[in-house]
Amino acid sequence: MDKFELVNRVLPQPQAAEATDEHFAPSNIALCKYWGKRDSELNLPINPSLSVSLAHLGTRTRVEPIEGPADDVWLNGLQLRADTLFAKRLSGFIDLFRQTSHQAFRIETRNNIPTAAGLASSASGFAALTLALNDSLKLGLESSALSMLARLGSGSACRSIYEGFVEWHMGHRDDGADSHAHPIDRRWEGLAIGLIKVDEGVKSVDSRSGMARTVESCHLYQSWPLQANTDLMKLHQAIESQDFTLLGSTAEQNALSMHATMIASWPPLVYWQPDSLAAMQKIWALRQQGLEIYFTMDAGPNLKLLFQQQDSTEVLAHFPDLEIVMPFGS
Amino acid sequence: MDKFELVNRVLPQPQAAEATDEHFAPSNIALCKYWGKRDSELNLPINPSLSVSLAHLGTRTRVEPIEGPADDVWLNGLQLRADTLFAKRLSGFIDLFRQTSHQAFRIETRNNIPTAAGLASSASGFAALTLALNDSLKLGLESSALSMLARLGSGSACRSIYEGFVEWHMGHRDDGADSHAHPIDRRWEGLAIGLIKVDEGVKSVDSRSGMARTVESCHLYQSWPLQANTDLMKLHQAIESQDFTLLGSTAEQNALSMHATMIASWPPLVYWQPDSLAAMQKIWALRQQGLEIYFTMDAGPNLKLLFQQQDSTEVLAHFPDLEIVMPFGS
Repeated sequence: MDKFELVNRVLPQPQAAEATDEHFAPSNIALCKYWGKRDSELNLPINPSLSVSLAHLGTRTRVEPIEGPADDVWLNGLQLRADTLFAKRLSGFIDLFRQTSHQAFRIETRNNIPTAAGLASSASGFAALTLALNDSLKLGLESSALSMLARLGSGSACRSIYEGFVEWHMGHRDDGADSHAHPIDRRWEGLAIGLIKVDEGVKSVDSRSGMARTVESCHLYQSWPLQANTDLMKLHQAIESQDFTLLGSTAEQNALSMHATMIASWPPLVYWQPDSLAAMQKIWALRQQGLEIYFTMDAGPNLKLLFQQQDSTEVLAHFPDLEIVMPFGS
Repeated sequence: MDKFELVNRVLPQPQAAEATDEHFAPSNIALCKYWGKRDSELNLPINPSLSVSLAHLGTRTRVEPIEGPADDVWLNGLQLRADTLFAKRLSGFIDLFRQTSHQAFRIETRNNIPTAAGLASSASGFAALTLALNDSLKLGLESSALSMLARLGSGSACRSIYEGFVEWHMGHRDDGADSHAHPIDRRWEGLAIGLIKVDEGVKSVDSRSGMARTVESCHLYQSWPLQANTDLMKLHQAIESQDFTLLGSTAEQNALSMHATMIASWPPLVYWQPDSLAAMQKIWALRQQGLEIYFTMDAGPNLKLLFQQQDSTEVLAHFPDLEIVMPFGS
């Protein structure tokens, strides 16, 4: 299946492009991870996933039609050369929406995500860009269509279309038209997320390649969908009943299981640094002492703590550099 | 199935017990790991495994019938109290062989395994004890029967009955009579093993409990037998053709996959220390630079390097504290 075909089918006749205001999309942290694609052109996942959006942390993007042969891409106030990976990836995504191949845009995008926290900016980035293009081209698409389109830029971007808890229904169609996210209609005021910085370096293996390596070389990965589906069910139950122990333990085992599939790949894919392990050991020791904290990790060395607002003071005493996000305000 | 029943069926009528000379059994390192039991009373594995014995490193044990109500256990020249875990485990194993419940033994056992290297002494220990009991009671058992009996003391002890490469056929009978090891008739003169010490501390979770936790709580474990069976086939091929790259890469992926099943268990079972991870990263960096070294790890934080004798000097330059073992002499 070709993604242009899919987009052509979904998009209404676009109007003449207009300049837009900034559109915001939040970053998101998966409690049940997206790991492995059944179609890498369409970013179709092998398993469903569930995330929580990070409130005010994310990406703001505006687009503006311009005269010229090529897009003009600005990131955090700096103009990027057209041959940078970032600019090429953005322009490649915009190609899906262009009315003619000569149509060019100026794209201004700003992340307010702490760059050191190991949060992916591609999820919020492609979500914000999709929202801006929808506005600029007056497509008037529904959220679920926007989510599906954002997915074509970066899989997890389909979840960043929404606030709060979000589930990505993996879908079953070959063309991917049914693979998009939905918001979960439940808030959790006291839920806190803490960002622990272990390493700011650029990852040696990006998640796209990491997923592909895992799917190709890891035998244990065959049981990953079983893990993910079980965890998804438990997370729904945890969110429904505001059972923090169930939420935290499920998210932590899910993240560790995803890392386990990387570790069991060949060549081994170990995003952990010695300091990541030291942080895990500290968390396990504190939990043993009665402090209810859990963690999750993405394809990188940094940890994200999960805890309840009532424990903030104690958590901060142990992790003084923690950046805290309250996904549901408060 | 009860193990006494099994042993009764296997043992010939024992003669009056006699004092024996020392019997030696080597320690062994699994290249395809034993991880998970289908029967914890009989130590029946879920997957086949393959190891290499560590030549002169292992356990020497002699037994001697004594008058008295209880066994008299000596470890490395020190007399142990009867209520220590070690003495109880030994006496429990000897119970399988006693002609009357009043028959007692003095057991003198010595390990020449560097205690800090993280090598299990239970494998060589139960193998040596089985050999000594076979001699003392003049049982005249074949190696395969000795291997099966040693398995009842500690699963991997069934492999320590033999030198060189050894395969543990998992067997399929419920009574475990067909679950024992066989030697593989191939030598590999230049094969070297290096013991890297990371931590000498006692493990917080022993392997018996670790296995049980993994089997019970780890979804990814469902694919572990697939990994083990694939690796077993590759290892046979590597040994047959003396293909070191295949041997090393298979052993490393197998060990990492076993650790992956632990990491994906709940509560998480992470035997790695930050220094274990640092050692792995060093090995991967050296391999990237062209030095052919691989590692394996058991249920603990220490690494065992696999390399070829021709690279000893270079390997020692990078790991000056390495204790080197040549399983096939030289």
